[in-house]
Amino acid sequence: MTSSMTVTELRRDFHQHPEVGFCEFRTASRAAGVLADLGWDVGAGADVLDPNTRLGVPAPEVLDAAYRRAADADGDDRFLPAMRGGLTGVVATLRGKRPGPVVALRADLDALPLTESDDPAHIPTRDGFRSRWPGAMHACGHDGHAAVALELARRLSDQDFPGTVRLVLQPAEEGGRGAAGMVAAGVADDVDIFLAAHLGMGLPTGTVCPAIPDLLANSKLRATFQGSASHASMAPEQGRHALLGAAAATLGVHTMPRFSGHETRVNVGMLTSGTSSNIVPDTAVMLLETRADDGNVNEDLERRVRAVLAGAANMYGLDLNVTLVGAVTTATNDPLLVNMIEEASRAAGAEVTGPGAGIGSDDATAFMRRVQDHGGVACYFGIGADSPAPHHASRFDVDEAALPVAVAVLEHVLRTGTTGNFSAGRFA
Amino acid sequence: MTSSMTVTELRRDFHQHPEVGFCEFRTASRAAGVLADLGWDVGAGADVLDPNTRLGVPAPEVLDAAYRRAADADGDDRFLPAMRGGLTGVVATLRGKRPGPVVALRADLDALPLTESDDPAHIPTRDGFRSRWPGAMHACGHDGHAAVALELARRLSDQDFPGTVRLVLQPAEEGGRGAAGMVAAGVADDVDIFLAAHLGMGLPTGTVCPAIPDLLANSKLRATFQGSASHASMAPEQGRHALLGAAAATLGVHTMPRFSGHETRVNVGMLTSGTSSNIVPDTAVMLLETRADDGNVNEDLERRVRAVLAGAANMYGLDLNVTLVGAVTTATNDPLLVNMIEEASRAAGAEVTGPGAGIGSDDATAFMRRVQDHGGVACYFGIGADSPAPHHASRFDVDEAALPVAVAVLEHVLRTGTTGNFSAGRFA
Amino acid sequence: MTSSMTVTELRRDFHQHPEVGFCEFRTASRAAGVLADLGWDVGAGADVLDPNTRLGVPAPEVLDAAYRRAADADGDDRFLPAMRGGLTGVVATLRGKRPGPVVALRADLDALPLTESDDPAHIPTRDGFRSRWPGAMHACGHDGHAAVALELARRLSDQDFPGTVRLVLQPAEEGGRGAAGMVAAGVADDVDIFLAAHLGMGLPTGTVCPAIPDLLANSKLRATFQGSASHASMAPEQGRHALLGAAAATLGVHTMPRFSGHETRVNVGMLTSGTSSNIVPDTAVMLLETRADDGNVNEDLERRVRAVLAGAANMYGLDLNVTLVGAVTTATNDPLLVNMIEEASRAAGAEVTGPGAGIGSDDATAFMRRVQDHGGVACYFGIGADSPAPHHASRFDVDEAALPVAVAVLEHVLRTGTTGNFSAGRFA
Amino acid sequence: MTSSMTVTELRRDFHQHPEVGFCEFRTASRAAGVLADLGWDVGAGADVLDPNTRLGVPAPEVLDAAYRRAADADGDDRFLPAMRGGLTGVVATLRGKRPGPVVALRADLDALPLTESDDPAHIPTRDGFRSRWPGAMHACGHDGHAAVALELARRLSDQDFPGTVRLVLQPAEEGGRGAAGMVAAGVADDVDIFLAAHLGMGLPTGTVCPAIPDLLANSKLRATFQGSASHASMAPEQGRHALLGAAAATLGVHTMPRFSGHETRVNVGMLTSGTSSNIVPDTAVMLLETRADDGNVNEDLERRVRAVLAGAANMYGLDLNVTLVGAVTTATNDPLLVNMIEEASRAAGAEVTGPGAGIGSDDATAFMRRVQDHGGVACYFGIGADSPAPHHASRFDVDEAALPVAVAVLEHVLRTGTTGNFSAGRFA
Repeated sequence: MTSSMTVTELRRDFHQHPEVGFCEFRTASRAAGVLADLGWDVGAGADVLDPNTRLGVPAPEVLDAAYRRAADADGDDRFLPAMRGGLTGVVATLRGKRPGPVVALRADLDALPLTESDDPAHIPTRDGFRSRWPGAMHACGHDGHAAVALELARRLSDQDFPGTVRLVLQPAEEGGRGAAGMVAAGVADDVDIFLAAHLGMGLPTGTVCPAIPDLLANSKLRATFQGSASHASMAPEQGRHALLGAAAATLGVHTMPRFSGHETRVNVGMLTSGTSSNIVPDTAVMLLETRADDGNVNEDLERRVRAVLAGAANMYGLDLNVTLVGAVTTATNDPLLVNMIEEASRAAGAEVTGPGAGIGSDDATAFMRRVQDHGGVACYFGIGADSPAPHHASRFDVDEAALPVAVAVLEHVLRTGTTGNFSAGRFA
Repeated sequence: MTSSMTVTELRRDFHQHPEVGFCEFRTASRAAGVLADLGWDVGAGADVLDPNTRLGVPAPEVLDAAYRRAADADGDDRFLPAMRGGLTGVVATLRGKRPGPVVALRADLDALPLTESDDPAHIPTRDGFRSRWPGAMHACGHDGHAAVALELARRLSDQDFPGTVRLVLQPAEEGGRGAAGMVAAGVADDVDIFLAAHLGMGLPTGTVCPAIPDLLANSKLRATFQGSASHASMAPEQGRHALLGAAAATLGVHTMPRFSGHETRVNVGMLTSGTSSNIVPDTAVMLLETRADDGNVNEDLERRVRAVLAGAANMYGLDLNVTLVGAVTTATNDPLLVNMIEEASRAAGAEVTGPGAGIGSDDATAFMRRVQDHGGVACYFGIGADSPAPHHASRFDVDEAALPVAVAVLEHVLRTGTTGNFSAGRFA
Repeated sequence: MTSSMTVTELRRDFHQHPEVGFCEFRTASRAAGVLADLGWDVGAGADVLDPNTRLGVPAPEVLDAAYRRAADADGDDRFLPAMRGGLTGVVATLRGKRPGPVVALRADLDALPLTESDDPAHIPTRDGFRSRWPGAMHACGHDGHAAVALELARRLSDQDFPGTVRLVLQPAEEGGRGAAGMVAAGVADDVDIFLAAHLGMGLPTGTVCPAIPDLLANSKLRATFQGSASHASMAPEQGRHALLGAAAATLGVHTMPRFSGHETRVNVGMLTSGTSSNIVPDTAVMLLETRADDGNVNEDLERRVRAVLAGAANMYGLDLNVTLVGAVTTATNDPLLVNMIEEASRAAGAEVTGPGAGIGSDDATAFMRRVQDHGGVACYFGIGADSPAPHHASRFDVDEAALPVAVAVLEHVLRTGTTGNFSAGRFA
Repeated sequence: MTSSMTVTELRRDFHQHPEVGFCEFRTASRAAGVLADLGWDVGAGADVLDPNTRLGVPAPEVLDAAYRRAADADGDDRFLPAMRGGLTGVVATLRGKRPGPVVALRADLDALPLTESDDPAHIPTRDGFRSRWPGAMHACGHDGHAAVALELARRLSDQDFPGTVRLVLQPAEEGGRGAAGMVAAGVADDVDIFLAAHLGMGLPTGTVCPAIPDLLANSKLRATFQGSASHASMAPEQGRHALLGAAAATLGVHTMPRFSGHETRVNVGMLTSGTSSNIVPDTAVMLLETRADDGNVNEDLERRVRAVLAGAANMYGLDLNVTLVGAVTTATNDPLLVNMIEEASRAAGAEVTGPGAGIGSDDATAFMRRVQDHGGVACYFGIGADSPAPHHASRFDVDEAALPVAVAVLEHVLRTGTTGNFSAGRFA
């Protein structure tokens, strides 16, 4: 990977090598290498990601296997060692020629544990850049986020912008697991303006939604139901059937009520239990989540869901262990920034639009809250990108025509927006 | 492995290297090697196991990995190639010095997909012969069956017995998947007397139950629920939630009624679905089984279970695929043999007892039916072996003091029982 | 009941004699009597309510019992006979002295099948006007609606208003079952302005919300699962267990996904099955509903719920019958009327506010759509009334201080609002 | 009813007037009247049934309504008053001319809460003696038991038998609720030989099974789930949904495992919850039962079922109340009596057979245990009666040709069996 690759080439390189949260060894190390080659001041590993504040870190052997795979697949040796054990965050900083605020732009790096569609009509399949690593896929556009960040870095290496620009390349956004560690490492402490942009979001290519409202708070839980095995025919009564408890819990979680006046979500997204038809399964492991447009409502919902898990375990005499493996809070967009992004988008030729359908969560809110707590401003906005399928589906695909739009809008924001708009404000 | 290992050493060698159904490359090839070294006429692979009649064969990559592991762990090169692709059956035949019937003894070779207990009080752990291969374990005593068969072969290599003895080493007894292929290959076609003995069965060490009654018919099913993925927060309604259907089916299968006048069993023993808490799971795969002490009842139960699966899939708009991956029929024990085994047991110093608690299935019934259809006789009997935990539990362990008892009883049967008892019968 | 009772006395009289949908024989006949005594032109029974367009009509014996009870409890003999069989609608019309539009005001009459709280702190209990009829309760404020309508009728009997006022007293609003029949009878065909006001709605006493947005479409279903009975111990396998199917369906209905971008609701509100612990229940009857803020989404949700019911029935070999027993569509509020109500509310001394929390359905939308289809305008608005508990709870209670506010606002609307605001419009 | 009615006429009279447990006012009082008219010494009410030891007694208003109905339908005024409140037991004693043991014969009186089939092919419908009381039906043959007992009384009124005969007419056998109270009243304390016979049991007309083995212990539970109501659309999150908890519990109870080596049963036979589709149901009431062929296994199963109920309640934040409303223990048949019944049956021209399919419970076991505890002997046997449908089904019907067979066998037992067989025993 060289700093001369186009944004599309970069995106396709990342797309072919998708890595899930805290396993982004290849993605993060190569991005760090490009940024270093471009002259940015690059930090990686424990310096920019507090190891103990991460949530939902994979098992050591999973991290090791991913590390070795990255090393075998052109991961950048200059940065890999610092990332060992899942410290796959990168921060790159460059000071502009003119005075101005510290502006941070977050890009996330992780893929999803999905196998990409092999339908010949699916563009990555058709054009030969489908995921090479079965079981992982860039189905949320983070490959585009990383590519756009690197292309911006290339353009801004002329330093012709006000203040300081900091690119924050975050691992493990999926599940809300990575931002907390970077916040804890202090990477947002001196930031005046924090920006996070997401491609897609149900918005058509060529549009920008300057403020995604209603990001949901969420809680990700891992629940383990522990029973005991026995021969399903010779002694069924001697087992304690972990799968029955987990199945009852799965249905129970999904029967949680709608909340009047609030958006909520629940999902049991993974369940695995047992090995053989003739053994009473002794263990069941479940991943699930709650979301709400209000932190208190999410807490209430999480409390109810935990009661469902506990009750279902008790129904079948099972032991239960529930751990929080991800947590995202809500945040608000500062109007000052919303206006600025709106103007910059128009100036860059994009159409300004309202939010698309569907609401998600993003732990960018952890950065936003930290910046706002220190007196800074923050905004989370959407950059349209057509896709034949929704986010997180195996046929999701970012329209590559959206990439130059994203670069143009963000370049406009970083070169001129942060000056003009703030001349009368605290950042003047 | 050499033909001079004791029955306990043999059992421990197999115990440390457990291989699940159709993956018994090391176990089968090494057993074949010992038998060949002892002078028996040995057949292996497609000659003794019809590849197309097997049920529930693992995926090619699973078979390949197991094959390579066996090759790396002292599998016997003389027999491994014939077994490639899961053809892990072995038949060894030896003619005695005296005239007599063709007597077949079945021993099964496969382990279960369980991780063995690492409790220091668990004897294999304490004494250093715990399974070396996590995720597989001899939790049903087949390690003992194989060891006893080889020790018998060593003793009988003096040919001092009537008729012909055939040792049938069967793969994939668990799940009722391996016997059908060996029957189809003709290994039971000329057999006059068929015997299968099982260690344990809730019987204490030193006892023999000369006829295990009420072996259950069973059907093993693999059900795949296919929905579609979507982002669990941004577009939950665009997904079709395979796990919800599978959870409803799991509960539904277990609510099937008891049948008056019949023993029945149902079990969903494995379920795996989804990858991530924030994706609507698009697929769920389930292994389940039905059993009954009557073939018609088992058919009725299987029909009801299939209705449950189909109804649950329809509840959530899912596609459903159900395949039969194992099937066992019932069989009866011939009184002639029951008496013979009873006498031989007493002669060998064992105590004769009734059946222990608990009923299982064994596809030895496929051999039994074939032999009986051709005018032969068959019997399935139990040889006691204390265990601290039930069959198929991670702390199951065959009391090794049971192994010489088994050898003694079976040796008595094969050397003298099959003559005396049948002098007035068709085998005279 | 006489036309000289105060609005509070009227409300308490209705409150003590709550009648559920199509059983409002006492309530409707007495209201009709009061209106006739006041000189209004009163229609009742089949003239104003098409018998065949009603949904969810109770069984004949239930209607008969309610009729007899009303006759025994001072129902008005002048109107009771016309209402026999559940024709409990009333329309009262009075022409004003001045020209103007035909203005219809809807008030609903029915109570809910709840037993009212006997907590001494519950005001109706404390003050001696708790429901005398166990199992029924005015827990949605319709007692207040009827009382306010009669007080309005008393005031407006001076005919000092423009145009024509028509009071539409509707049965069976709960469940969305009564409006359709009155629309089919033509009572809204010549209406220029249609108004429906609801007390409570989470709004404090003294406030008016001039436009309740987002009324939900809904579908009410009755599902009957038919299996067959058998002795639960002697022959469990010979029964088909209707309750198991209904229980699976209950959970399944509640697991329907949230819809991104839309408010939805599902509820299984009633289930009854079986008679005895030792009989396999042969029948289960369920009442359930779906709602959505968009008619198409509600259709989609209803379709999914029907699939759940059918799938669950098939799981247990049950026959299923599903009938639509109530249906409510959505409607929009005409801005012209929203403004008029806002001005009238202020003029009457009420505070104008936005909508409270919580969204419901009201089949007033059937009148609204009919009027709007004919070129008229319509609005559904809320009049605040504090309550210690939410609507449909056994401790719900309308703050009686809200009643004079409601009368004042509506009187203002009907005496002056409908003239001034429409001078430049079609009603000029 | 007079003492001259035939056994068939008596059975049809009872069949047309079925009364469920503790409501057998007409049946019991008329039987008492016949017995008194025949010269037997008759006790009824609290003298023979301890009011406080009864289980699962209906609500007072239910008992009152049944009492009034019986009084209106030719209940016997001589005995009705003593039975008020559900004291519907009768004991009739007659001393024979010869010395001998005290022999008790139990007959149960209660019907089931089923509506009888109106199929014209159903014999009671066809021949005009179908249940006149909808919702109740003699679907277990107790009408025949009562009729046979009265015919025996008529025949034995010649006192030509040894010892003393006591007819014990028991209420509320269904659910195992009535025997305990009669035992507590002492009616079995001096009994030497206790006999209970059941018609039907899957045995053909003309046969007798002299010992029904494996009567199951059982526990009957009433579970009440208490949540709180709310408007299902406006505030679903404010309710606690009792029906969801009950539905989860229903499925959960039915997923209890089979027990190896034991017959077990579970059934949720009744569930009722909620009133309206738009209210979150605040209460759910469930009747359920467990059974096992071993008292300890039944205790284990009941404990597991209670855990299911509690866990399901906790899943949804519900309060739970569980009460035991019926309990039956197991008992063994004394071989001495089995032989005697076998001989008497043959002598009476009946064919002796083994048990039919299907296993039930009967609280006759409470009498049996009391008698055996005092040194007496007891036996529970079956008298064949063809039926087109299983017990407890709405088309169950006792073949009336079985009635004279039952009378003949029992007459033989009581006149001669109890002498001859016991000449060498304690009853000599």
